[in-house]
Amino acid sequence: MKIPVGILGATGSVGQKFIQLLENHPWFEITALGASERSAGKKYPEAVNWFMTGPIPENISSMIVNECKPNLNCKIIFSGLDSSVAGEIESEFARAGYIVVSNSRNHRFDPDVPLLIPEVNPDHLELIKQQNFGKGCIVTNPNCSTIGLVLVLKPLADRFGIEAVNVTTMQALSGAGYPGVASLDIIDNVIPYIGSEEEKMESEPLKILGSLVNGEIVNCDMIISAQCNRVAVLDGHTECVSVKLKSPATEAEIIDAWKSFTAEPQKLDLPTAPLRPVYYYEQNNYPQPKLHRNIDKGMAVHIGRLRKDPILDYKFVVTSHNTIRGAAGGAILNAELMVKKEYIKP
Amino acid sequence: MKIPVGILGATGSVGQKFIQLLENHPWFEITALGASERSAGKKYPEAVNWFMTGPIPENISSMIVNECKPNLNCKIIFSGLDSSVAGEIESEFARAGYIVVSNSRNHRFDPDVPLLIPEVNPDHLELIKQQNFGKGCIVTNPNCSTIGLVLVLKPLADRFGIEAVNVTTMQALSGAGYPGVASLDIIDNVIPYIGSEEEKMESEPLKILGSLVNGEIVNCDMIISAQCNRVAVLDGHTECVSVKLKSPATEAEIIDAWKSFTAEPQKLDLPTAPLRPVYYYEQNNYPQPKLHRNIDKGMAVHIGRLRKDPILDYKFVVTSHNTIRGAAGGAILNAELMVKKEYIKP
Amino acid sequence: MKIPVGILGATGSVGQKFIQLLENHPWFEITALGASERSAGKKYPEAVNWFMTGPIPENISSMIVNECKPNLNCKIIFSGLDSSVAGEIESEFARAGYIVVSNSRNHRFDPDVPLLIPEVNPDHLELIKQQNFGKGCIVTNPNCSTIGLVLVLKPLADRFGIEAVNVTTMQALSGAGYPGVASLDIIDNVIPYIGSEEEKMESEPLKILGSLVNGEIVNCDMIISAQCNRVAVLDGHTECVSVKLKSPATEAEIIDAWKSFTAEPQKLDLPTAPLRPVYYYEQNNYPQPKLHRNIDKGMAVHIGRLRKDPILDYKFVVTSHNTIRGAAGGAILNAELMVKKEYIKP
Amino acid sequence: MKIPVGILGATGSVGQKFIQLLENHPWFEITALGASERSAGKKYPEAVNWFMTGPIPENISSMIVNECKPNLNCKIIFSGLDSSVAGEIESEFARAGYIVVSNSRNHRFDPDVPLLIPEVNPDHLELIKQQNFGKGCIVTNPNCSTIGLVLVLKPLADRFGIEAVNVTTMQALSGAGYPGVASLDIIDNVIPYIGSEEEKMESEPLKILGSLVNGEIVNCDMIISAQCNRVAVLDGHTECVSVKLKSPATEAEIIDAWKSFTAEPQKLDLPTAPLRPVYYYEQNNYPQPKLHRNIDKGMAVHIGRLRKDPILDYKFVVTSHNTIRGAAGGAILNAELMVKKEYIKP
Repeated sequence: MKIPVGILGATGSVGQKFIQLLENHPWFEITALGASERSAGKKYPEAVNWFMTGPIPENISSMIVNECKPNLNCKIIFSGLDSSVAGEIESEFARAGYIVVSNSRNHRFDPDVPLLIPEVNPDHLELIKQQNFGKGCIVTNPNCSTIGLVLVLKPLADRFGIEAVNVTTMQALSGAGYPGVASLDIIDNVIPYIGSEEEKMESEPLKILGSLVNGEIVNCDMIISAQCNRVAVLDGHTECVSVKLKSPATEAEIIDAWKSFTAEPQKLDLPTAPLRPVYYYEQNNYPQPKLHRNIDKGMAVHIGRLRKDPILDYKFVVTSHNTIRGAAGGAILNAELMVKKEYIKP
Repeated sequence: MKIPVGILGATGSVGQKFIQLLENHPWFEITALGASERSAGKKYPEAVNWFMTGPIPENISSMIVNECKPNLNCKIIFSGLDSSVAGEIESEFARAGYIVVSNSRNHRFDPDVPLLIPEVNPDHLELIKQQNFGKGCIVTNPNCSTIGLVLVLKPLADRFGIEAVNVTTMQALSGAGYPGVASLDIIDNVIPYIGSEEEKMESEPLKILGSLVNGEIVNCDMIISAQCNRVAVLDGHTECVSVKLKSPATEAEIIDAWKSFTAEPQKLDLPTAPLRPVYYYEQNNYPQPKLHRNIDKGMAVHIGRLRKDPILDYKFVVTSHNTIRGAAGGAILNAELMVKKEYIKP
Repeated sequence: MKIPVGILGATGSVGQKFIQLLENHPWFEITALGASERSAGKKYPEAVNWFMTGPIPENISSMIVNECKPNLNCKIIFSGLDSSVAGEIESEFARAGYIVVSNSRNHRFDPDVPLLIPEVNPDHLELIKQQNFGKGCIVTNPNCSTIGLVLVLKPLADRFGIEAVNVTTMQALSGAGYPGVASLDIIDNVIPYIGSEEEKMESEPLKILGSLVNGEIVNCDMIISAQCNRVAVLDGHTECVSVKLKSPATEAEIIDAWKSFTAEPQKLDLPTAPLRPVYYYEQNNYPQPKLHRNIDKGMAVHIGRLRKDPILDYKFVVTSHNTIRGAAGGAILNAELMVKKEYIKP
Repeated sequence: MKIPVGILGATGSVGQKFIQLLENHPWFEITALGASERSAGKKYPEAVNWFMTGPIPENISSMIVNECKPNLNCKIIFSGLDSSVAGEIESEFARAGYIVVSNSRNHRFDPDVPLLIPEVNPDHLELIKQQNFGKGCIVTNPNCSTIGLVLVLKPLADRFGIEAVNVTTMQALSGAGYPGVASLDIIDNVIPYIGSEEEKMESEPLKILGSLVNGEIVNCDMIISAQCNRVAVLDGHTECVSVKLKSPATEAEIIDAWKSFTAEPQKLDLPTAPLRPVYYYEQNNYPQPKLHRNIDKGMAVHIGRLRKDPILDYKFVVTSHNTIRGAAGGAILNAELMVKKEYIKP
């Protein structure tokens, strides 16, 4: 008996990814699809402009899309709603008793809502207890460019402490949703701006890496500076990072911190967890989004080129899959953690 | 009567750009083409895999390619030779009395060789007097990713002083020459490594922005950290920069420093000089390589997104054309300055 | 004293191209810009998402956008309107006495409206006399993929006659307007369908190559079969063509027919006319959109790879610039012909 | 006990694909790698520039590359050798008793060598009996652009007969091997020429669709005209086809012929066989290489847009994966058929 789940924003790009990743999930089964009024009432294949590789899963093909009203036949809601509407709709579902696992940014900074990466801050799940939604609740995952960065910073923060992080991103087109970036704008080009992205990267890690003290998150005190760019890559964000550590570290110690990093999802053997959260490569031209984004189910983060930085302490490059680890896959992993931790009961 | 010039490495990508930019030049006329033994003796169209847009200029089409021996019928040598052979060949030509204006890296750090950007360090031309080549001499221009950066730093260095520069680049494919980067390696991808590029960006600006003291260059004392990436752009390097200044500056003062920047090439009205060396844009998604690389003959540098940096002081984005301003066009501008300053006499 | 012209659909992709190509036009001067209600009343730079390379021309930067009502201060109207609205608006302008030179498809098959390519059917301009718009009139140019094909067929039709044409296109993204094709849909992909495009390619050439008999167009009797594809090219349509001729021809005769082809625009020395309408290349991998689209002001058509076809008679490849020759530039050439033929009087 | 196989040309692009596809193969196990002298003696990861997505399989990582001499420890040889050397080396291996399953073109037209597609001409395997290699033999698969076409023609040829085929291809970059096409040549471009490709497409189907009569292949009598283009797609060839049939057919009958097509590999349940050799799509913008190339293990061919052709009878679009179905996967399927048919005995 699988746990019934519903997808909000089921026709959007994150919604499609949820559907693709949940096909054959061992614990969850999609039983409801929610989308805008325009799509409601239609069969899913008629409502969606499906652009995932591979066909629409068969059982989904016959489903009728509903409006995003809290009368869906499911227990968990995965929300890929646009932030223009996600805030209120997600609250409604939570009030109606649904477990809302959201990829949208609206509730990320609510003081009682976990901004969750299972490998990084699984203890933040306790915040749920302070929520006033009755049996329902809301859990969020961070922005797609934040997740890769934080997974890589976590082992360093734990072992050496981090004072400052300078990051320049080269982000994939799928991060902009669909239709997103016009081909005329990005072929043979770079766009050195993504709306609100730098603000998210500079603030979200502080909450995620923060401590739970007396039921409240005390933000981590590092300083982050982000410059975000869109490049002609379909999937996979690449980030050039430099860090200033609080205590000294050798290159070998840093690599060891990454290579030995393992966490709750690995210990609990969650179905969507990568075997290893981060991979370090010795090749001087690695990681690359096309080569590495799909490794370990698209749920791992890939690091290379660790070397001294003459201004801060060290610099390196990070790549991760922005719509799997950075969005739908990350949310599914959050829900899996909640099941194992018995925040969700079958 | 135009000054006769020869192109070394005439079949390579920089050589082709020299030929394209010198068509109809008011002062210079190509009278000799040099390339490898394999090409020597052939008509140019049979020796070259021409990939510039637009056809081979007519007068070049009938020229025979020579070997790179110092018996060419010309006064100035523009060298686009590969660094594996440029060092010795360029010295030979200088010893034989030619004015060698090189785009190769080999002699850039010779103490008596100017590493020249006419808008930045025209006084460094005096170093030539210390060279021991008789009537000949060697002048170099910097690496393609350095030029854009230094042109933008110069007005800030003059007015506020610079302590540190952090730069992450997204560099165009034409920077790798031809055939250069395989399409299978870069479509839908980023390669976070370019051999020796970071070393060049971290060292060349120190000499260029250095002072000529008693006939010697004293390097500028700023610290530079560079991370260099290859992206799927044909022409135009984009750089995300953050800087720490020596004395405080407001955003308005910085923008004013850029907007009011003008220098020798503009005053001397050199034929290849841009009307303005740098342009600042208010649009939050500018500059972009596809939109801005060709403005002002491809010789200007384009800046946007100036904003506070929480770690250093300010951050911004820079774009410039890597094979025009950053290579062949930059070298031609060097030669034009030398003519006006009478280092070259018709 | 230049002739005042207005641009309808001035913020769209064809409208932007009109503005770019008319900067410094010797006969025409833009004095009015029309666009949708949403843009009307705004300064042009605030109304437009300008994506041409190079900046908005200065005199245009200060112009206010008007609604598309026939009270604009100009004599000629260049229309780049979307076909959803072009039909009625263009008629209104013609009735109000404007010379409407349209790139839209709505009036192309009106029996009294010329579907004009100045090198091919300049005599069709006479149809205007049958129009009932008083001093106003409407002239159209063909679809972007039709123009290149017809310019190449015309010399063959004249000399040998054509029975059948099989054409498969690989069309550029700018043909879909802006934002047009989503980057997620076309990077690393081909889309083997463009709405209505095959119908246009199979019908428009029949009218253009038709004869004017007693004031009516009698369609040409060739059969055309078209397959249209979208590929990841910014500008420039490429077409693989095979033809069955009515009378036998050698390869040399066909190439001669192309090389010797010249027509009204060349004889009249129209400002936007290419020196030669078609170019034939001997290189076995030519023509290519990136290499050839901009040659001769983007107004020429480029042909290569003529060889026997085992099913029809001959096959070859054609490339032309779809938004210059195939849209805005073609319309401007139409207006220039009308001036010289005194259909438009200053 | 798996059958030991060796890969010739193991460091090339087809060789890498063989290695990737044979990881976890139920019948075959790679026990030897052959490559050029330059690679011989090195560990595979040091000899190869691996560019497959996903890492080098672990068991391969420790293998030493050998020269391509017939002393390899294996029974079957998969050859991805360059055609400049494949002819003689493959013959040597066959003479030494190896089963050579080749992707190279050298032996494709040897009268006693099957040019094999298991769904199309499995009976041609009998030709092997005429070979004079003792226990060894050579079997080839067709060119990557041929396979997709022939799989789609086969059901039509069987049911209606085919007189003529006109095909224009848009071929992927991986078909050119590695490094293959320079990025500067193909980004924002189409190259309308691929050396020898049109000749292969016009001749190979005639042998494959030919009949085995008294131990000899009698070629099929259809006429094929091909125009081949390279486009900016990583994997997956797309082909626009028009056909003239020998007997009349309705659209429904043609679609039925495709949908009901099944053959030996499906009946024998070969491990690499697709569930269905061809898929027909109703969507008017399908098939697309990015969406469909990997479906059904990358071994199926995808068809769409069947419609009347005004010159021949019908036209449609075909897409298939050029390095899986069209190269390494096709060769593996050939070997699987040979095992089931007992041409190879464990």
